Amino acid sequence: MKVIAFDTFGTVADWYTGVSHVLAQTFPQIDSSQLARDWRRTYGPVLAEVEAGDREWTMLDDLHRETLERLLRERYDVCATPAQLDVAVHAWHVLPGWPDSSSGLHRLKAKYTICALSNGNVALLNEMAKASDLPWDFVGGSDLWRRYKPASEVYLGLARLMQVHPSEVLMVATHVSDLAAARSFGLRTAYVERPSEWGPEPKDEAPNPADDFHVRGIDELATQLGC
Amino acid sequence: MKVIAFDTFGTVADWYTGVSHVLAQTFPQIDSSQLARDWRRTYGPVLAEVEAGDREWTMLDDLHRETLERLLRERYDVCATPAQLDVAVHAWHVLPGWPDSSSGLHRLKAKYTICALSNGNVALLNEMAKASDLPWDFVGGSDLWRRYKPASEVYLGLARLMQVHPSEVLMVATHVSDLAAARSFGLRTAYVERPSEWGPEPKDEAPNPADDFHVRGIDELATQLGC
Repeated sequence: MKVIAFDTFGTVADWYTGVSHVLAQTFPQIDSSQLARDWRRTYGPVLAEVEAGDREWTMLDDLHRETLERLLRERYDVCATPAQLDVAVHAWHVLPGWPDSSSGLHRLKAKYTICALSNGNVALLNEMAKASDLPWDFVGGSDLWRRYKPASEVYLGLARLMQVHPSEVLMVATHVSDLAAARSFGLRTAYVERPSEWGPEPKDEAPNPADDFHVRGIDELATQLGC
Repeated sequence: MKVIAFDTFGTVADWYTGVSHVLAQTFPQIDSSQLARDWRRTYGPVLAEVEAGDREWTMLDDLHRETLERLLRERYDVCATPAQLDVAVHAWHVLPGWPDSSSGLHRLKAKYTICALSNGNVALLNEMAKASDLPWDFVGGSDLWRRYKPASEVYLGLARLMQVHPSEVLMVATHVSDLAAARSFGLRTAYVERPSEWGPEPKDEAPNPADDFHVRGIDELATQLGC
């Protein structure tokens, strides 16, 4: 194993805390905890629309903006201003890392090549890395491939750029679908528990025993890998 | 100015010292200083062949291997083994940084997004970064675009990934041709003196007064930029 690829939203960064905090400031009249979770639920379906070819490849910021605007209008009866949408969409660029993320990545970096492998784009991921001290060797943003996970091009594209066999890449995520896709393309997998990913809402995930590693955080992954 | 893009071979890394050292060990019967310079002289022409469309896009390692094999055979009357060629080609992956490179990049990283923008590929540049502590925010390798500098796609491709206007990118190089191309596409430019780039051979470069900065090293660039 030479390369470790990390999902970011939820796995490395705490989207619920970062996004609900900004939503509370931007839309004080709304239950920001509920809105953050509702917004996040639009993410999978809209990315799937793009991957199904129902619409052109579109950057995540634009998808986030469109889904939030519609959600506010249709479910919360709120007409957001462009400036409010800008602020909310930007929250995803500066999500806080989980407490173990930065220290765990620093430890892993000494022995492995560590990469973000995310549906965020390169500039978003760079901004998050600088804000939360995530010392990526390489930032694998979706705009490199103009594809979203779980497309094979993303996982295999990273292996190709790193000049390694897919089995030399460990995919790390807190989402079983991401890991199932990675495994189907020949990568190894590590499941990270993030029980508070959805804030007050219990997480509905059943990890697959086929994962090579199962850890509570990135520091624990570093320990299990002898870093 | 938000993003600083660095040429690597010659600008950040000392190819002459790294390559001639490995060549001296691999081909002890040959003047390694001369061979390193002869080999480097094949670089521009073979990349230009690719960019002219005379041959398919080919990774730098493969071009390096082919040019060294031919040079040894035709000019030095030496038939290199595959293992010897492997070792020599790999020298470019672990070139030493100039003494000011790592410290200067660490200073600049605190205020700017710093990127490699090189004709080397991503895996090569990652290996060099780990060997010489080059703390890139993003590794802009030629395989991202399957184009070589001075193609516009490389310079403008980086600006697009970073979501900045080309004029918000500063291109840093010790080669006037690289800077001339960057300037023609709207980037700002910084010339770095590297008088011993070619070892004992004087460097034949006349910097263009149109450069925004002219420095003796990356530490000096950090000082001029207030980092």
